[in-house]
Amino acid sequence: MTRVRLGISYDGTDFTGWARQPGLRTVQGVLEESLSKVLREPLQLTVAGRTDAGVHAEGQVAHFDTAAEFDADKLLYRMAKFLPKDVRITDIRTAPAEFDARFSAMRRHYLYRLTTAPYGAQPLQARGVVPCKPGVDLEAMRAASRNLLGLHDFAAFCRRREGATTIRELQRFDWDRDGELLTASVSADAFCWSMVRSLVGAVLAVGEGRRAPEWTTTLLAETARSSSVTVAPAHGLSLVAVDYPADADLAARNAQTRESRTVPAPEGGCCGD
Amino acid sequence: MTRVRLGISYDGTDFTGWARQPGLRTVQGVLEESLSKVLREPLQLTVAGRTDAGVHAEGQVAHFDTAAEFDADKLLYRMAKFLPKDVRITDIRTAPAEFDARFSAMRRHYLYRLTTAPYGAQPLQARGVVPCKPGVDLEAMRAASRNLLGLHDFAAFCRRREGATTIRELQRFDWDRDGELLTASVSADAFCWSMVRSLVGAVLAVGEGRRAPEWTTTLLAETARSSSVTVAPAHGLSLVAVDYPADADLAARNAQTRESRTVPAPEGGCCGD
Repeated sequence: MTRVRLGISYDGTDFTGWARQPGLRTVQGVLEESLSKVLREPLQLTVAGRTDAGVHAEGQVAHFDTAAEFDADKLLYRMAKFLPKDVRITDIRTAPAEFDARFSAMRRHYLYRLTTAPYGAQPLQARGVVPCKPGVDLEAMRAASRNLLGLHDFAAFCRRREGATTIRELQRFDWDRDGELLTASVSADAFCWSMVRSLVGAVLAVGEGRRAPEWTTTLLAETARSSSVTVAPAHGLSLVAVDYPADADLAARNAQTRESRTVPAPEGGCCGD
Repeated sequence: MTRVRLGISYDGTDFTGWARQPGLRTVQGVLEESLSKVLREPLQLTVAGRTDAGVHAEGQVAHFDTAAEFDADKLLYRMAKFLPKDVRITDIRTAPAEFDARFSAMRRHYLYRLTTAPYGAQPLQARGVVPCKPGVDLEAMRAASRNLLGLHDFAAFCRRREGATTIRELQRFDWDRDGELLTASVSADAFCWSMVRSLVGAVLAVGEGRRAPEWTTTLLAETARSSSVTVAPAHGLSLVAVDYPADADLAARNAQTRESRTVPAPEGGCCGD
């Protein structure tokens, strides 16, 4: 058996999220079906970030095991012809048996894109950019974002799942402006379900003047999902990169991840990690 | 009567080009219908560049005349709610009576976007980026593009229309690389029908090694459309800006344009300018 690591990009608009669900068009479903046909072997993908319906990816990572022999470059070309235009396999390489797209991941990087243009998103970007109020206070948003950095219980920002911890380390949450486009860079060791969109929703409430920047600090003291936090729309969010350790450190990382988190069985349509 | 100048952006994917055509969804048709409803007055748009089916715009300019009273900011917001997401009015301002979106234009700027990625276009960019061969020779493409700069008869690159000159001044035609993305910046006083896509198609033949860079020079000597020039796909092309003179020079510019070009009646679905 060979373990294969994939780089994956998709436009989430026409998918019901990553996770395979009977009768629904999902990224996992389309990819597993296509790869199984081309490699003539049923196979299953394990993914770094199980994105929700409508969420995009520009740097998703997954792995699978196969007994089939293949040339990585040729398989990349074949999959480019075979797959629909809204999902691409951007990289194929063999990986050590210890590589696990989910449990070996050290860090996930997301972008969330907003526009302050009074006319809304530019049409060519509209699938990946969410309109917000033109007058948002970017400095207040930056302050509200900084309050959330570090190791915290993000329960207020997470849809609770039985047995799953909501303690995460938020390593980056800052905002760039390019004309009307505001882009949040959000990085953490892992994210719980709907966490990035809840973080952005909370900070937007500050940017729009409905809350003071200090409000985000008070949210960190809550022990359950807060109904005062709005979840920002899915289509502004994109998983852009996942970091892994060097091959020699994979086994140690896997053990560390499994120890630090009680992980429930994956559920249909769930997001997270 | 007030003359009104509009800035317009659109994703051309689901439009049969700019020009109104009975029974077809066109940018002009959607905009005229929406503006006429909101201003409660039938009105007609004159545009800087009548883009073909599938071509995008990020900086299109048009004008219309109206007897209606309106506040430009409020009208912008109303149109943002009223229009479909794939077309946006990005700017509304009053203009001098001499301003003519078509005849006052001094220069049109287009971008053409290609990707050399072996897996094709990134899904979120796929509507505006055309895949090309991964190994294209960018330096040869740059040389082939430089050969075309200046005032020439671009007949080899134009679909001939009765009575229309094909002499144009190509002021810019260069290529930027950003990772796998290759972007051509193409600027001229005006373009004839299908000219930008034919220029890109000819240069791509050089990039892919099917022609030598000098070939583009020989094309300038031809006096009719060349069957050896491939027209590049519409969806890589976007009209990004139009330059106009200062208000005091509008009348002089209009006279100059009309004198230098014999302009036929617009035809359905045509491109150009």
